[in-house]
Amino acid sequence: MIYLDNNATTRPLPEVVDAMTAALACWGNPSSKHALGEEAKRLLAGARAQVAALVDAQPVELIFTSGASESNHHALLGALRRPGAPQRVILSAIEHSGYLKSALQLRQQGVEVVLLDVDGAGRIRPESLQHALHEDAALVSVMAANNETGVLQPVETLAELARGRGVPVHVDATQMVGKLPLSFSRWHVDLVSFSAHKFHGPKGVGALLIRKGLSWPVLLGGQQERARRGGTENLPGIAGFAAAARHAMASQVAEAARLASLREGLESVLARIPGCVIHGRAARRLPNTTSLSIAGLSAEKILGELARAGICASSGAACSSGGSDPSHVLLAMGVEPALALGAVRLSLGSDTDAHQLSRLAEVLQSMCHSQPMPEAALG
Amino acid sequence: MIYLDNNATTRPLPEVVDAMTAALACWGNPSSKHALGEEAKRLLAGARAQVAALVDAQPVELIFTSGASESNHHALLGALRRPGAPQRVILSAIEHSGYLKSALQLRQQGVEVVLLDVDGAGRIRPESLQHALHEDAALVSVMAANNETGVLQPVETLAELARGRGVPVHVDATQMVGKLPLSFSRWHVDLVSFSAHKFHGPKGVGALLIRKGLSWPVLLGGQQERARRGGTENLPGIAGFAAAARHAMASQVAEAARLASLREGLESVLARIPGCVIHGRAARRLPNTTSLSIAGLSAEKILGELARAGICASSGAACSSGGSDPSHVLLAMGVEPALALGAVRLSLGSDTDAHQLSRLAEVLQSMCHSQPMPEAALG
Repeated sequence: MIYLDNNATTRPLPEVVDAMTAALACWGNPSSKHALGEEAKRLLAGARAQVAALVDAQPVELIFTSGASESNHHALLGALRRPGAPQRVILSAIEHSGYLKSALQLRQQGVEVVLLDVDGAGRIRPESLQHALHEDAALVSVMAANNETGVLQPVETLAELARGRGVPVHVDATQMVGKLPLSFSRWHVDLVSFSAHKFHGPKGVGALLIRKGLSWPVLLGGQQERARRGGTENLPGIAGFAAAARHAMASQVAEAARLASLREGLESVLARIPGCVIHGRAARRLPNTTSLSIAGLSAEKILGELARAGICASSGAACSSGGSDPSHVLLAMGVEPALALGAVRLSLGSDTDAHQLSRLAEVLQSMCHSQPMPEAALG
Repeated sequence: MIYLDNNATTRPLPEVVDAMTAALACWGNPSSKHALGEEAKRLLAGARAQVAALVDAQPVELIFTSGASESNHHALLGALRRPGAPQRVILSAIEHSGYLKSALQLRQQGVEVVLLDVDGAGRIRPESLQHALHEDAALVSVMAANNETGVLQPVETLAELARGRGVPVHVDATQMVGKLPLSFSRWHVDLVSFSAHKFHGPKGVGALLIRKGLSWPVLLGGQQERARRGGTENLPGIAGFAAAARHAMASQVAEAARLASLREGLESVLARIPGCVIHGRAARRLPNTTSLSIAGLSAEKILGELARAGICASSGAACSSGGSDPSHVLLAMGVEPALALGAVRLSLGSDTDAHQLSRLAEVLQSMCHSQPMPEAALG
């Protein structure tokens, strides 16, 4: 099997599995005052320091959650409940579909939801935010890197604009963390969401960073996580998260370079397929992501052919891969609906090598009756 | 070590660890349409059927969550967001502290929060609910079994009263599930919360049952769980949850009888300690839980002595064991604050045997300068 759907989820590393197994043997409740509880509490503190280090945050700034979806909701719903908060939020039009849908549903409760435009390469337009900030808002919420196109967003520019108006900034960094270095302290944003399973950690665990000193309304009440998130801590998941963070810290820079080179080779081959469009290619992107359409071919047809060749890819976010609507991300970029409907996302990962991509290119080319390219072209 | 804090958390079973390890090897995203995703989706469906079977619910009625805290909040906050819902909720005064605190904070948002009284044995008084139902409410939320005293609540009686007024009923069954058989279909309630780690499953995963046909506002948006709970599913946790459910279904009745007999033996010995009070003893209780105070002895002193003997117990809920306030559960039962402050919770589990309880009784008796009892008395 050739797995090219690493933006949907990733294979847990052996050391992640080991850390989880070890945590299942250290099974006390971290809130308990006895020896078993203290042991669990130490494990939790160590894991918090490790995950915080990956994103250059202080351990006290990090809350463990059940995943990025919860973290995003915590940021968004919390913003609206801050004392005196204007019932108006600003999100980019290319946020993750589940999160965006939740935000749009707030309109039914009278919340004004402003969506920021993106340019043709999939980057949020700072002028769009500037305009939106003419009125006060409870939150500006943007992605660090888009899940479908991999396009990196101008987080620092956007954050500076919002800061100038005193509006808190939340960044969904789910697709960036573990793939590229990220510094919470240097971003100067207020909240950051991410999850473990996008970079070889386990599913079911994520984090929300809350800038030190910032008080933020709680989503799930309880005394855990310094009374910022209730519920007995998911220790096995958190231990796995920490192991994945440790691995990423050590390897992410080299791995990013390796993937960028592989992806460059792949795209140079794909670009020669007649009718092939690589979405967001003009922008800085995650090193592992290619979103492409081939004029005249549906995503279903491409994915079916890939599946027959043992290649796993997707038509966009896994979370909306059941739908038959064109991607809201590509539409926001101005891609024609017909072309957007044919989009396929290839997301490389640590198991990806040149041989796999050569096989992929072969299958795509043969669908277009072209000649296969030599493996050497894929670097 | 003698672990008598099973209401705080339990040791994951070997088959739970195995199921989680297997699920970490079946690591696709259940939302992905390719082979790896389909495999993960089958694992998810099988686990859902297994956990639903434990509580006699239909699989479509079960949403996986990150734990009972999330499930409780989903029920409570959802109730207030149903179209036309009166901004008034009715909870028992003995709900889990984190959940109760969240509910009480809703008062700041103008929600009326009515607390139901309990009798001296710790049972919610149906008359109290009858009175509260003179006005309409968005939700009645009660526990199935109290976490501190183990006292079983008259769920069916309370549910019938609420049903008569058309008010939805939520039951936090966290401490009951896996310890005693429970039938969602026969309870005739609308929502039930529980979690895996209270009956030898992993931490970080729970469930919310929503009665078939009932539409309930979403807490975390997204397309997972039939669009009722967003976020990539915690497959390793869910697989472990299912393994724990399978074990509980096979063993819970016999295990409940074994624990009831052990607990009976223990309490008959403890009752002879001068000044010893067993809270809720007059009520039907979980078979594994004893909450006791010994006049003149602080919880700190008792727990310190137990810890020196290698015995783990707690002064109440793990989630509030950091506090120095007397238990809100015992105060609601009319226990004197001084006595309530001395309360210690002993919660037995599958590793508990008569020898351990004999040792426990010895330590407690020696603190009161009495004679140790022979092991035989503990059955």
